[in-house]
Amino acid sequence: LIVGEVVGTIVASRKEEALEGLKFQIIRIEDMDPESGGLKPTGHYLVAADAVGAGHGETVLCSQGSSARLTDKTKDRPIDAVIMGIIDTIEIEGEKIFEKYAG
Amino acid sequence: LIVGEVVGTIVASRKEEALEGLKFQIIRIEDMDPESGGLKPTGHYLVAADAVGAGHGETVLCSQGSSARLTDKTKDRPIDAVIMGIIDTIEIEGEKIFEKYAG
Amino acid sequence: LIVGEVVGTIVASRKEEALEGLKFQIIRIEDMDPESGGLKPTGHYLVAADAVGAGHGETVLCSQGSSARLTDKTKDRPIDAVIMGIIDTIEIEGEKIFEKYAG
Amino acid sequence: LIVGEVVGTIVASRKEEALEGLKFQIIRIEDMDPESGGLKPTGHYLVAADAVGAGHGETVLCSQGSSARLTDKTKDRPIDAVIMGIIDTIEIEGEKIFEKYAG
Amino acid sequence: LIVGEVVGTIVASRKEEALEGLKFQIIRIEDMDPESGGLKPTGHYLVAADAVGAGHGETVLCSQGSSARLTDKTKDRPIDAVIMGIIDTIEIEGEKIFEKYAG
Repeated sequence: LIVGEVVGTIVASRKEEALEGLKFQIIRIEDMDPESGGLKPTGHYLVAADAVGAGHGETVLCSQGSSARLTDKTKDRPIDAVIMGIIDTIEIEGEKIFEKYAG
Repeated sequence: LIVGEVVGTIVASRKEEALEGLKFQIIRIEDMDPESGGLKPTGHYLVAADAVGAGHGETVLCSQGSSARLTDKTKDRPIDAVIMGIIDTIEIEGEKIFEKYAG
Repeated sequence: LIVGEVVGTIVASRKEEALEGLKFQIIRIEDMDPESGGLKPTGHYLVAADAVGAGHGETVLCSQGSSARLTDKTKDRPIDAVIMGIIDTIEIEGEKIFEKYAG
Repeated sequence: LIVGEVVGTIVASRKEEALEGLKFQIIRIEDMDPESGGLKPTGHYLVAADAVGAGHGETVLCSQGSSARLTDKTKDRPIDAVIMGIIDTIEIEGEKIFEKYAG
Repeated sequence: LIVGEVVGTIVASRKEEALEGLKFQIIRIEDMDPESGGLKPTGHYLVAADAVGAGHGETVLCSQGSSARLTDKTKDRPIDAVIMGIIDTIEIEGEKIFEKYAG
């Protein structure tokens, strides 16, 4: 599973029919960084279909491969990555390194 | 999902029967590059079957793995990558970093 | 299969329904390091659903891709990584490089 | 899909029954190299089952993952890579960078 | 397909039920090295279920992903890598770079 922040969107009007109604989000992939006590961008991006209605700036959990087709919204569609959860907290070694409503 | 530009084609006359009628495109894989406000080539290429009739120079969305077989044109065929959308716009942090008909 | 140590957890309250009841663990991926006679962290992390009730600090065996859905707890769920075993011993070239209850 | 040149073979007499009759080829993976106007070896190799009877020195198209099982010869067999086409020509930006019968 | 040498084993007594009876081997992944006329370790390791009863020190052929579940021993089990052949010979450019019973 991939952790990342929603930073943008992709629009493709001419596409395979089975893709109608899906929203494609751009996710900045994040690494755990226990030393700095937080997350750090990897410099890589993931493009994924959105199964949960994630908003700009939210930190999300993504699934890849055939598992990306196992949500209600993505069943039998030709996509290989999906946002399937919005993260509230990430804890490493007892320390919260990410919290959704942190100031 | 992979973003890239169609830059070439591959022809293979002797091949597995299940591949008849498929067109193989060469895609120059692009990375999001928010700093330069655009896309940048990664130096890597993807060879994919074309499910949407993408033209030379178009920026496309590709799916990999078993999901590449979930389009009408690629069903049950031994391919692991497919072009399944032609991109109109890519937006990151509220800025359009790619637009199809930009001058 | 991936070997790693459970170092944290991720909580996501808003998520695809099919994920209810799953626990997401953060695993620090470990490499075999025969020279030092042990395991060494790769600096990478894996986020996986937990099928065996692994505890913090345990060294586990993880499966990725469609195989991650082949446990009782993860059947038909949109996850691409699962903890499916808790490691007792790792032996390389006749030497135990990891033992669960070593002092 | 992977492009590469057949450079060798692997023989394994003791193996899973489902593999009987398959030929394993070693493929030197090639990258597109528009600057030099040709292909260039990546330094990596792929071992794949052969579904088309490729000969030594031929440049081939390979499929990976579950798609590798979608040819007649590889159906339901435990292989994750297959040669499924023999390449005649590769064209990038209107230039032929590979041609089978080039001198 | 991955080529490597069996160098160790992993024991996990607490695990997903579907894994009972499987043996987990550690494989030192090898690269083809035509220049030195042999194989060379990549420095990476693969953990795989054993479908053929490979012994310590044997050079084996492994399959990854969903294909790893296509052997008799691994059917429907949550594993993503399997040893499915024991290699006798590897030949590159007409030279044997590996032979099982070489002195």
